[in-house]
Amino acid sequence: MKSKAVFYHAGCPVCVAAEEQVAAAIDKSRYVVEVVHLGEQKDRLPEAERAGVKSVPALVLNGTAFHINHGADLAALK
Amino acid sequence: MKSKAVFYHAGCPVCVAAEEQVAAAIDKSRYVVEVVHLGEQKDRLPEAERAGVKSVPALVLNGTAFHINHGADLAALK
Repeated sequence: MKSKAVFYHAGCPVCVAAEEQVAAAIDKSRYVVEVVHLGEQKDRLPEAERAGVKSVPALVLNGTAFHINHGADLAALK
Repeated sequence: MKSKAVFYHAGCPVCVAAEEQVAAAIDKSRYVVEVVHLGEQKDRLPEAERAGVKSVPALVLNGTAFHINHGADLAALK
C-alpha cells in the first residue's frame, strides 16, 4: 500500500517553487501525492492544522508536517 | 541523467525526522541523493552557503535550497 503525502500551498511563489521541485521529486511508486490549495479549499484548513501545519508550503508525510521554506502563515489564509 | 539532491543536516532530531521522511521519499530513479552532515563535514559549508542554505535540515534540488522545518542555523555549525 502506498503512503500518503499531502502538499499544502496557497499559490504563492515560494509554494510554486516547492511544488515544482520538492513535491515533484517524491517517489510516486511509493507515495500518493495530493496537492491542496488552502486559499481555495478552506475546508481543509482544520485537517492541516491538526497535522501540525503552521505555514505554507508544507508537506505532510505519514502524518508528520514538514514546512518547506516560508510562503505564508496559515493564519493569513483564514 | 539523474538530477542531484543534497540533503544537509547536523544530526539534530529535526534533521533526523526530515531525513527519514522527506529525503527518504525522493524518487531514487530520478535523483541521486547525497546526505551531508555539516557538523562533521565543515568543508562542505561554503558549498551549502552558495546554494542558499541558511539552516539545517535543508534539501538542495537542482541548485535551489529548500529549508525543511528548522533544526539549527548554519552559523551555529561554524
